[in-house]
Amino acid sequence: MDYKAHFQAAVDTVKAEGRYRVFADLRRKRGHFPQANWRKDGGSDRDVVVWCSNDYLGMGQNPVVLDAMHDAIAEVGAGAGGTRNIAGTTRFHVRLEEELADLHHKQSALLFTSGYIANEATLSTLARILPNCTFFSDSLNHASMIEGIRRSKGTKHIWRHNDVEHLEELLQGADPDASKVIALESVYSMDGDVGPLHEVCDLADKYNALIYLDEVHAVGLYGERGAGIAEREGLVDRIHIINGTLGKAFGLMGGYIASDSLIVDAIRSYAPGFIFTTALAPVLAAGAVASIKYVKNNNGLRVQHQERALRLKTLLREADLPVMASDTHVVPLLVGDPVSCKAVSDSLLLDYGIYVQPINYPTVPKGTERLRLTPSPLHDDVLMERLVVALREVWDRLGIVAKAA
Amino acid sequence: MDYKAHFQAAVDTVKAEGRYRVFADLRRKRGHFPQANWRKDGGSDRDVVVWCSNDYLGMGQNPVVLDAMHDAIAEVGAGAGGTRNIAGTTRFHVRLEEELADLHHKQSALLFTSGYIANEATLSTLARILPNCTFFSDSLNHASMIEGIRRSKGTKHIWRHNDVEHLEELLQGADPDASKVIALESVYSMDGDVGPLHEVCDLADKYNALIYLDEVHAVGLYGERGAGIAEREGLVDRIHIINGTLGKAFGLMGGYIASDSLIVDAIRSYAPGFIFTTALAPVLAAGAVASIKYVKNNNGLRVQHQERALRLKTLLREADLPVMASDTHVVPLLVGDPVSCKAVSDSLLLDYGIYVQPINYPTVPKGTERLRLTPSPLHDDVLMERLVVALREVWDRLGIVAKAA
Repeated sequence: MDYKAHFQAAVDTVKAEGRYRVFADLRRKRGHFPQANWRKDGGSDRDVVVWCSNDYLGMGQNPVVLDAMHDAIAEVGAGAGGTRNIAGTTRFHVRLEEELADLHHKQSALLFTSGYIANEATLSTLARILPNCTFFSDSLNHASMIEGIRRSKGTKHIWRHNDVEHLEELLQGADPDASKVIALESVYSMDGDVGPLHEVCDLADKYNALIYLDEVHAVGLYGERGAGIAEREGLVDRIHIINGTLGKAFGLMGGYIASDSLIVDAIRSYAPGFIFTTALAPVLAAGAVASIKYVKNNNGLRVQHQERALRLKTLLREADLPVMASDTHVVPLLVGDPVSCKAVSDSLLLDYGIYVQPINYPTVPKGTERLRLTPSPLHDDVLMERLVVALREVWDRLGIVAKAA
Repeated sequence: MDYKAHFQAAVDTVKAEGRYRVFADLRRKRGHFPQANWRKDGGSDRDVVVWCSNDYLGMGQNPVVLDAMHDAIAEVGAGAGGTRNIAGTTRFHVRLEEELADLHHKQSALLFTSGYIANEATLSTLARILPNCTFFSDSLNHASMIEGIRRSKGTKHIWRHNDVEHLEELLQGADPDASKVIALESVYSMDGDVGPLHEVCDLADKYNALIYLDEVHAVGLYGERGAGIAEREGLVDRIHIINGTLGKAFGLMGGYIASDSLIVDAIRSYAPGFIFTTALAPVLAAGAVASIKYVKNNNGLRVQHQERALRLKTLLREADLPVMASDTHVVPLLVGDPVSCKAVSDSLLLDYGIYVQPINYPTVPKGTERLRLTPSPLHDDVLMERLVVALREVWDRLGIVAKAA
C-alpha cells in the first residue's frame, strides 16, 4: 500500500477542482472590528476589512464580554482541568447553562465544546435512546447534523429543502410506531433563508414527532430577546430541542442544546461527545454569560443588524450584482464556479483590502459557489459603499456571468 | 410513541446502576491549585482539595499562560469569529500549529476544538481517503477513537489490550493489499499503563501499516521536551500520526494531530469535524503557545510530577490501600462497584473536603470502578498524608473489600 500516493491524490483532487482551501492569516484589532491585519504568505502585513465573519454583532470585542473574561482568568485560571464529570464543572458552566435555559424559555441547557459536536452528539444519542428512531432531515442541513444522523443507528429520510409537502409524504410513509425526529435549521447559513417552522410544528403534532431545531445562525439575532426564530415566531414551546452556538452572535466558541430537563439529563448521561471531553474553558463560559445577558437586553443591536443587511442587499441590487434571495442577515452573492469564486476573493483582498472568503463545495453545492457577506452593526455606510464599488469593478474585470435567481 | 417514557427509562437505567453522574460545582482559586471552592446542592460553599484534575502540572494557573491570555484578549478580543477557512484563522492559530509541529518533531500540526473531535475526525477521515481501510484498535482505546473508527466505513479489528501477539495475528489475517491503521494510546488514562510502542512500530514496518497514537495523557509529561512517550522512547519518526490535547498538561482546551505535511493537508481538506466548526478562540491558542514553550523548557516539572506520583503510590501501598498497577503519573485505586465508589467519593468530599470523582462505567469496565488520583507538583506532602489518612478511614468505615491485582 502506497499511503503517500493516496493522501496526495486526495489533496490533488481538491486542488484540481479549484477548492483547495488557503486560510487567511488574520489578526483582528480589538475595538476596531471589522478591521483586521492580514499577513500574506511572504510575511508582509496589510490592513483589511473583514466582510465574512460570523461575529455578527461584534460581541467578540464588546468590553462587557472581555471584562468578564479577564475577571474569570484572574479568578480561576485557564482551563477547566477535566471533563464535566471529573473536576471540570465550574460555577461558570452552571451559570451559563442556567442563562441559556432562560434565554430559550426551556427547563435546561447542556454545553458542548462546539455547535458541531452538540448536533452530532445529540442526534446520534437520540437514536440510541429512542426505539426504532427515524430521522426526517432537511436536505440542506448542516454537516454536523448530517454526521450525527448518518452515524447513528437510526433510519434516515431526507426531505427536499423547506418542502413541507415532501416532509409530510415521508412522515405518512413511515412506521406509525417508530420514534420520529424532524431535524432542520431556522436560518440556513449559506442561503439566508428560513425553515418553515409553523408548518413543521403542525406536522410534528399530527404525526407525533419530536423537533430538533438548529438555531446557530439565529441565536442572538432574532426574537425580542435574541433567542432565535422560534422565539420570534412564538413557537418555543412546540420545539423540543433547540441547538445553538456561542461562537457566532455571542462572539466566543462552544455549542449547546436547550430542552426539557429530562431530555437534557438523558443526553448528558449517554452522549460520548459530551461525556468524554474536557469542559469548555471557564474563561469562555464567563464571557458567554456576559454576552448573552447583553444581547438579550439590547434589542437595538438586532434592529441595527437587520438594517445593515437590508442596506447592503439594496446597494448590491442597485449595482446589478447577483444577490441571492435571502430573508435574513446573510447576504450571499452568486459566482457559480470555484475558480472564479477564488479569483474574485483574491482580487478583493489584494487590490482592495477587502476580505471575503470564497465559499466552495462541500460547504455549498457545486455550481452555487458564492461570496457570503455578513454585515454587522459595525459595517458603516462608507465601508459598504467601498465594498460595492470594489465588487462591481472585480465583477466587470473578471467577466463573472452567473446570475442569481 | 411515548417519548418521555423512553428518556425517563434511559435516565432510570443509569440511576439503577448507581452511575448517575452528579457534577461537582467547583470554583478553582488561581494561584492556590489544587485548592478549590465547592458549592453544595443547597448553595453553601466549602473549600476542598482537588485530587482528580487533569491539569497535571498546574499550568492552568501558571502566570506565563494567564498573561498570554490577557494579552490576546486585549489585542484581538474574544472569539475567532468563524471556521478556520472563513475568517477564523488568526496568527495565534498559525503560531500554535508551528509550535506543536516543533514539539513533536513533525512537519505539521492541525488544531481541533477538542482532543475528542481530533480523534473522531481524523480516524473517520483516514478511512475516507485510504482504500479498503482496516483499523487495528486496542481494546481499551478512548471513546473518541472508538467513535471515529466505528463511524467510519473502515473494517475494524480489536486487539486485546497491549497484546502485540494478538495484534500480529490480526495483521497476518488481514488482506495484504488493504490500507492498515494501528490505533493505540501511549498512556491509558484510567489504568496508567503504557502502550507497547516499540513492538507496534516493528509490526507496522513488517505489515506496512500506519500508526495512529493518542498521546493526550502523555504530552507535556514525558520525553525530554514533553512531547510524550514516543519522544521518550525515541520513536517519533516511526509514528505516523500523533494525537494530543491542550486540555490536560497544558492547562487549556483543544486538541490536535501532528504528522507529515501531506497527511495534515489531506485531513485538513476532508474532515467535517475540522472544516465545519468555529476555530478555537484566539485566547486559548495564545495561552497554549505560552504553555507549550514553558513546559518544553522546564523538564524539572516532569521530574517533580513523577516524584509526586511515586510518593503517593508508596504511601497508599504502605496504608494497605488497593493501588492498581500503573507505570505512570495516574494513580488508580480499585473499589470494584459503582455504589461503593460513589459512597467513598461522597465521604471524602463531605467529611474531609477531598474531591475525587468516582470513575464508573462507561468510563471503565463494570466491576473495575475506581478512584483515579492525579497528584501534581502542587500536591505537597501534607496534602498527600491527609489524603491517605482519609482514604484509610473511609475504606475501613465503609468496609470496602476489593483488592487490586
